[in-house]
Amino acid sequence: MLTNGPVVDSSRAIGVFDSGVGGLTVLRALRDELPREQFIYLGDTARLPYGTKSAETVVRYALQAADALIGRGIKALVVACNTASAAALPSMRERYADLPVIGVVEPGAEAAVIATRSGCIAVIGTEATVRGGAYQRAICRRRPDAVVSAVACQMFVALAEEGWTSGAVARATAQRYLAPLSTPGSGSMPAAVADTLVLGCTHFPMLRSVIREVVGDTVTIVDSAATTARAARAMLSERGLLRLDETAAPMSFLATDGAARFAAIGARFLGCDIDSRAVELIDL
Amino acid sequence: MLTNGPVVDSSRAIGVFDSGVGGLTVLRALRDELPREQFIYLGDTARLPYGTKSAETVVRYALQAADALIGRGIKALVVACNTASAAALPSMRERYADLPVIGVVEPGAEAAVIATRSGCIAVIGTEATVRGGAYQRAICRRRPDAVVSAVACQMFVALAEEGWTSGAVARATAQRYLAPLSTPGSGSMPAAVADTLVLGCTHFPMLRSVIREVVGDTVTIVDSAATTARAARAMLSERGLLRLDETAAPMSFLATDGAARFAAIGARFLGCDIDSRAVELIDL
Repeated sequence: MLTNGPVVDSSRAIGVFDSGVGGLTVLRALRDELPREQFIYLGDTARLPYGTKSAETVVRYALQAADALIGRGIKALVVACNTASAAALPSMRERYADLPVIGVVEPGAEAAVIATRSGCIAVIGTEATVRGGAYQRAICRRRPDAVVSAVACQMFVALAEEGWTSGAVARATAQRYLAPLSTPGSGSMPAAVADTLVLGCTHFPMLRSVIREVVGDTVTIVDSAATTARAARAMLSERGLLRLDETAAPMSFLATDGAARFAAIGARFLGCDIDSRAVELIDL
Repeated sequence: MLTNGPVVDSSRAIGVFDSGVGGLTVLRALRDELPREQFIYLGDTARLPYGTKSAETVVRYALQAADALIGRGIKALVVACNTASAAALPSMRERYADLPVIGVVEPGAEAAVIATRSGCIAVIGTEATVRGGAYQRAICRRRPDAVVSAVACQMFVALAEEGWTSGAVARATAQRYLAPLSTPGSGSMPAAVADTLVLGCTHFPMLRSVIREVVGDTVTIVDSAATTARAARAMLSERGLLRLDETAAPMSFLATDGAARFAAIGARFLGCDIDSRAVELIDL
């Protein structure tokens, strides 16, 4: 327990945490949804990627990152990382009982269940997210008859970071991962064809158009960044924590390594420039 | 200084260190070159990749890993990681003055200078290796008139780990990175065509055949794993540290996270099975 009683100061910032730059797609959605709020974003760039690490390690790292943000006096925490949401959300809610904490998995699962007609949902994510099964469980809790297939698309992370979000390599990668999802009964894939695809990694919205090309127009693509931003607004509103006045400094950035790389690659994810001198390096 | 006086016990193991599984291509070459030796391999899988991290962080991590291996009583240390070799070798040689320490950069540079006829050499590696310029410097020290071009091929790492070492994605990736190296004067690439290509990342030998396809038969490919193994043999021989009798347990493995993943992916890099129960997890 790191807080004393419920947070009541709506003028405080919202903490946003990810293993690296991927969560900046969530910050972008949060900025669109909550333009008056102030955000402190922490990217644990020294220890990324979380997606190939064990659950115990991810929990340990995520709690250290959350502690650092809470030390800066935030009013709510958005875990903008699918791997950390899947592995560490229960530990976080226990440790920070009075702080509103929201992850990306539950809002994504909720949106998928609303979107699907057939009940067949495909989830793509990192190795750790797929292996952990959090999306599969969150979907089946809401719709027990859902048929959920999950595919780890590790290469999409590298493509998004390299900025290769279109072109031959991106297309061939998307085809290799996703074609089986739209071909009934091929190989080891489920016979049912998914009508809904959850982008279960914050890097994947960067590849949205090439993914759309491969899966076709009939599949609904659920981007958990946008759904998480809407869920964050609802949670803040419910607790009376929405900021009433505009803030002069809407975003600040913390990273655990490589400020210049964070700023350069992060700008593509955030959709606007990041000044590398304004990225504060911290140790966790 | 962690050692007291020179190491003289040739029956001790050779420590091999990498950020993850990539260095297992070097261990494979070491096993071929030094079949009587015993090896302790440490993969810092909790903190990989090093290739996108800052030099200061890489030095800190590499020294912690080396300390752990030295704590197990090794007779020599092979830094089987281009990023760590480039960033941390001087600090290591200072810290472990009496221990033979060998990296992969110098042997790779040496082999490239011997192989080239035109003096035009291309180096491919991770972002950190290319940015740090260690290969470029090591080549130019040996041949001051060499024209060295260096290209960061970050996606090759992801391809090797995913096991996509052939097929459409690997080919399109290799073409995107390497085609400019064989087309004189195209875009921002140097007008001179390299006749020698250094695989400056231990992951890249896994993609050797697709790289060969793209660069053609006239380019000499220098694989620093094989050249490092030969340099290690020479160094041990010179110091009277070659093992005389066969060892019963030739290889043991340490990792900082994910023993199962280390064993599964590592087996492809090492070219033989790794029992995940035999991978010891350690904290650094």
